[in-house]
Amino acid sequence: MGSTVEGAAASRGWALHPDRALPADPAVRPIARHVLDATSRLPIVSMHGHVDAAMLAADEPFADPASLLVTPDHYVVRMIVSQATSPGPVRDAGVRSAADLGVGPDAETDPRTIWRRFCAGWTALRATPTRYWLEHVLHDVFDAPLAPSPEAADVLFDWIADRLARPENRPRALFERFGLELLATTDAADSDLAAHATLAADGWGGRVVPTFRPDTLLEAGTPAWTGELERLSAAARIDAFSYDGFLAALRARRQAFIAAGARATDHGHLRADTTRLPDADARALFGAALREPLTGEASAALTAHLLFEQAAMSADDGLVMQLHTGVLRDHDRGAAAAHGPNIGYDIPVAGEFTRALRPVLEAFGHREDFHLIVFTIDETVYSRELAPLAGAYPALRLGAPWWFLDAPDAMRRFREAVTETAGFRNTSGFVDDTRAYCSIPARHDLARRADAAYLARLVAEHRLDLDEAVDTAIDLAYRLPKESYPVPKSAPVAPAQPEPVA
Amino acid sequence: MGSTVEGAAASRGWALHPDRALPADPAVRPIARHVLDATSRLPIVSMHGHVDAAMLAADEPFADPASLLVTPDHYVVRMIVSQATSPGPVRDAGVRSAADLGVGPDAETDPRTIWRRFCAGWTALRATPTRYWLEHVLHDVFDAPLAPSPEAADVLFDWIADRLARPENRPRALFERFGLELLATTDAADSDLAAHATLAADGWGGRVVPTFRPDTLLEAGTPAWTGELERLSAAARIDAFSYDGFLAALRARRQAFIAAGARATDHGHLRADTTRLPDADARALFGAALREPLTGEASAALTAHLLFEQAAMSADDGLVMQLHTGVLRDHDRGAAAAHGPNIGYDIPVAGEFTRALRPVLEAFGHREDFHLIVFTIDETVYSRELAPLAGAYPALRLGAPWWFLDAPDAMRRFREAVTETAGFRNTSGFVDDTRAYCSIPARHDLARRADAAYLARLVAEHRLDLDEAVDTAIDLAYRLPKESYPVPKSAPVAPAQPEPVA
Amino acid sequence: MGSTVEGAAASRGWALHPDRALPADPAVRPIARHVLDATSRLPIVSMHGHVDAAMLAADEPFADPASLLVTPDHYVVRMIVSQATSPGPVRDAGVRSAADLGVGPDAETDPRTIWRRFCAGWTALRATPTRYWLEHVLHDVFDAPLAPSPEAADVLFDWIADRLARPENRPRALFERFGLELLATTDAADSDLAAHATLAADGWGGRVVPTFRPDTLLEAGTPAWTGELERLSAAARIDAFSYDGFLAALRARRQAFIAAGARATDHGHLRADTTRLPDADARALFGAALREPLTGEASAALTAHLLFEQAAMSADDGLVMQLHTGVLRDHDRGAAAAHGPNIGYDIPVAGEFTRALRPVLEAFGHREDFHLIVFTIDETVYSRELAPLAGAYPALRLGAPWWFLDAPDAMRRFREAVTETAGFRNTSGFVDDTRAYCSIPARHDLARRADAAYLARLVAEHRLDLDEAVDTAIDLAYRLPKESYPVPKSAPVAPAQPEPVA
Repeated sequence: MGSTVEGAAASRGWALHPDRALPADPAVRPIARHVLDATSRLPIVSMHGHVDAAMLAADEPFADPASLLVTPDHYVVRMIVSQATSPGPVRDAGVRSAADLGVGPDAETDPRTIWRRFCAGWTALRATPTRYWLEHVLHDVFDAPLAPSPEAADVLFDWIADRLARPENRPRALFERFGLELLATTDAADSDLAAHATLAADGWGGRVVPTFRPDTLLEAGTPAWTGELERLSAAARIDAFSYDGFLAALRARRQAFIAAGARATDHGHLRADTTRLPDADARALFGAALREPLTGEASAALTAHLLFEQAAMSADDGLVMQLHTGVLRDHDRGAAAAHGPNIGYDIPVAGEFTRALRPVLEAFGHREDFHLIVFTIDETVYSRELAPLAGAYPALRLGAPWWFLDAPDAMRRFREAVTETAGFRNTSGFVDDTRAYCSIPARHDLARRADAAYLARLVAEHRLDLDEAVDTAIDLAYRLPKESYPVPKSAPVAPAQPEPVA
Repeated sequence: MGSTVEGAAASRGWALHPDRALPADPAVRPIARHVLDATSRLPIVSMHGHVDAAMLAADEPFADPASLLVTPDHYVVRMIVSQATSPGPVRDAGVRSAADLGVGPDAETDPRTIWRRFCAGWTALRATPTRYWLEHVLHDVFDAPLAPSPEAADVLFDWIADRLARPENRPRALFERFGLELLATTDAADSDLAAHATLAADGWGGRVVPTFRPDTLLEAGTPAWTGELERLSAAARIDAFSYDGFLAALRARRQAFIAAGARATDHGHLRADTTRLPDADARALFGAALREPLTGEASAALTAHLLFEQAAMSADDGLVMQLHTGVLRDHDRGAAAAHGPNIGYDIPVAGEFTRALRPVLEAFGHREDFHLIVFTIDETVYSRELAPLAGAYPALRLGAPWWFLDAPDAMRRFREAVTETAGFRNTSGFVDDTRAYCSIPARHDLARRADAAYLARLVAEHRLDLDEAVDTAIDLAYRLPKESYPVPKSAPVAPAQPEPVA
Repeated sequence: MGSTVEGAAASRGWALHPDRALPADPAVRPIARHVLDATSRLPIVSMHGHVDAAMLAADEPFADPASLLVTPDHYVVRMIVSQATSPGPVRDAGVRSAADLGVGPDAETDPRTIWRRFCAGWTALRATPTRYWLEHVLHDVFDAPLAPSPEAADVLFDWIADRLARPENRPRALFERFGLELLATTDAADSDLAAHATLAADGWGGRVVPTFRPDTLLEAGTPAWTGELERLSAAARIDAFSYDGFLAALRARRQAFIAAGARATDHGHLRADTTRLPDADARALFGAALREPLTGEASAALTAHLLFEQAAMSADDGLVMQLHTGVLRDHDRGAAAAHGPNIGYDIPVAGEFTRALRPVLEAFGHREDFHLIVFTIDETVYSRELAPLAGAYPALRLGAPWWFLDAPDAMRRFREAVTETAGFRNTSGFVDDTRAYCSIPARHDLARRADAAYLARLVAEHRLDLDEAVDTAIDLAYRLPKESYPVPKSAPVAPAQPEPVA
């Protein structure tokens, strides 16, 4: 057995091990530490995510541990609910559905009860990134004295509640403490961007920027679509109830986003298809959609065409185009109806990019000012499609491992699958894509560890020099995310620039 | 070069190394040994497989080495046949087809000749789990003095034949020696379960239980289907030649299986589709099938509907529903016609689960008493579909790596692909699914080693505490298989319970 | 930090580390060295690739470093072009498209300028096999004194140009120096094989052999097809403008290739489908194609049928059938039109083999003299389809990792994905498939290292004995490629045989 096992046993306890998530191999770990040392104190640029700008604009204290860390985190909610009918502490704690964790209209409202249920589900999170992130948040952000467990639930709740009341844990104070240099939010196309205006007025304009997300406007297969057009018309002050007006309104909103500091758009449809329709066909479909929701096939065709049009607008105004496709949203329609969206029932399907992206890449793939970043939860396309495409077209970068793949082993698989074909500089660098504000440092920390681990192995196998590994690690952690999301060419002459973090 | 290579060379020989299949990394192996030590002596629960209950009921000595270890093992037969036209010992030994290994009606009948051919093919099994399992069987079960080789063939044959004649190697004695606590067989829906009745009369009722497999009854695209209905009618004593009668007969057979101790059903269709048809359409298709075999598309639609109905019955009677889909059976129709089924020409195809399981999961995915376990040979669905689904729906567990994936590297990939998204407790724990009775201990041993290897790496990377790893290893080896296959709620008041192994 | 990092830093510099691409694990590396030692000096058999026989027939000095190492290498061109719009040295060096690297009709023609641009893109190749191969070529073949960099560009250019003028770097001298035993080229079906005749007249007939590639003749969906028929008719001296004549002409050309030493055919269509049509349908489609190009669906059906016919011819004449399918050629049709084919815009799509190969495998899969080798760039089919098929059908071998997968981590994944199901002897051994003549030794070296790494891990995990690992390594590097491409049974009585390399 020997000292390794004793070391492993002794290392247990409520602490973040300095070598966590680094390779165990004694020939690799010291190199990984060296590489990590070059990135662990770099500022964080968070170029895509779902933090609410209004939270930062208001800068109020967070309400309680449950509403901060449990209820809004679909990773946590889904995993605990998945244990609801199995023998064990989750079932014993009375969890039957997401409502028991505070999600939805008829949900549990007592934060302490929710927190106890979360603590009962802690063991279900073993070996998941969620556990890793939460340990980091509890330990590093709130200095919590012990790990979650049914016994520790109340002590922890009170501890964190106390910390949340302190000024140093208000949103903007945390922003500084996290070392955030720039944070991009995600905003509906008709958003008034009021929170961003407040932030700009407070001198935070260059640090928190919006992202233009017009998904619902590009999907004309639902009865809600015309309502979306109304809101778009109002926001853009352009009548969007004609094809030309619709495109003009989208262009206007993109300009408003650019004026507010936006760097990018984001698109989350089921498929990545960008097939352009003949102009007359697009107009006809748009007109038909005004009369009644399109059928599935027609709706998908119009979405593909409009994605192409969004690419054309990006080639024109310089907003980086992000694709997050391949997820069947609200897989359990009953749960979605009862508890709302984004609670863990969004399930991936097989993706296809080689044919889907061809129209956009043939049209704009070599344009100096067009930037496309593609994310996937379907790993099979990494080596087969996305790495070959990103290794050929200058405009395309392969986004960081997304969602379920934002995890140590999955991040390793990502680098192993894409690097030999696409290298490093055709990837976007790390993008956290989180809704959980407090987990941003944890996610960047874990990603930097995963990249250090991969790079250290290459060095130990004499496939990369040590100085190249260090330089590449800095690229992946800091330089590439900034470079991949440049300030749009059509931005105001003196665009809001991020201030360097001291 | 040094001592490592000398150690590797010295370790050679006819012995099972205590560290076999554990990671070589000196920072991980001691931890893996420690984790394995916690599971290596646990009883075996074999919750799904294809051992013949009649063999245990009769408890006769096994006939000879070839008919025990070669002819019925499609892993062995296919691999040796695959070398039939290559220069080398297999071709030289006269192997041209499965018949030369004793398979099928016009096959070789001399066991010693078959055994010699098997020994000639031994080198073709290098680095396969088949080789690993057979080494374990030969070494641990039969105490064989040397490894298979053309030179050793006759010595080995005589040695094993001698051992097979001894009482301690009869089926029930081996059951005890293997540390089997519970063994589930697989049985046609119209089975009279006579062997299980014999075993129950002998006091073995709680130790060997049947599994309900109605595949042929759910596939109305073949001329054989009406014959299946006749046998079902006879077995259930219900006229199955109407849609309602058919469902009633299936329900009755499920009850008979439950009375005989069954925990589960099993379903092995090409697709996992569970789309429910409107009742009238289902009745119409059933009626049409009574007149003539359905076309491919109609047959698949009826199968999907009937799978949904099986799920509904499981939600009602509590039998765990197992899916083993995605295999194109009898790829070589000529070989199947000549030698019979299950000889190695069943080849996987790409699977789809996100859409396929939606009907069943929306309907029953949160039901307290519904249990669905899904197996796949298509690894691409692990991280993309099955882990996200199992990490959300309480009723769904992800089955152990199946068939070709029941192998050391494939088992590692399974854990790496699913754990970060679904954790451990949304998996079924180990399921051996074997026809090869004597290999059951070898398969559980190898699975426990693979899980110890994975868990040890997590500990060494400070992603899991050592005590958590040990606790999880026991879950995967023993607790989860039992928990995943509970006694059905509709079982008799005092259901036959497995006796603990001393 | 310690000595490992210092060692890694110190190991830097312009040298090929003897342990490059071997595992870092101290328990595995010494074993890997031992295994590699058994193969590193074996002759090279290069059974499939795209080296131009005319280059060897003429045996002229190579013109300059750029036209030898940059312009014709699509791996290099695509990766450098992929950085054309990113901030950095590639953009600064003026690269906008493949033309700037010498590709196509209006391309840069100054070799030194192209070479400087290549050197500016060197850092983009980090961690790619292209970098590894080029380092090997520069260091081992040309004894270059330093690594490429913008600063070193001119020194390197002059150094290599000087070396290229020396007699020991002419094509045939390099052939000897590389330790090549046999090199297969790829040749159009209508090729006059003049270069091969020249080589044969010079006594090189057994060392450089052609491969029959009739792709364009099997695709009747383009206007160019009838021109292809004309060339076929002329080459075969048989009128190919009837279905029977077409097949007869193909048979005749195959015989001509066999007479010139060919071992194999090669087929590179989008899909692997081999569905045979009824004879009348095939004749009708062929006739229709003579009148006008077939539509996509009809063209694909005829291609599938003709692939089956090629398999039938192989079963008859003994030429090994190779499939390289699953690539969408000329993804960017504009780039292809401007710069030509094979410049990096050939992108993989998802593959399917279980159903696609069934017709050929059912018909010929057990035939003594039929040999099929299948390559894929879609890794998902390794464990799901190709390993199960190769582990069952004697006639089928799984080709070496192809194209983007011919890289260290991808080669590891290949062995891990296929060996447990198909073993080693159902694979082809290493096949380099290169156009870059000088990189042949580098590619075989890297493949031997990758296999040594995999085998050493198995030994260290006590899954394979050391002597078995050494024996298997020799199989993979040398014996299996020769065995997988036997001399056709219909070859002349005394077929040209490769002479052993001293």
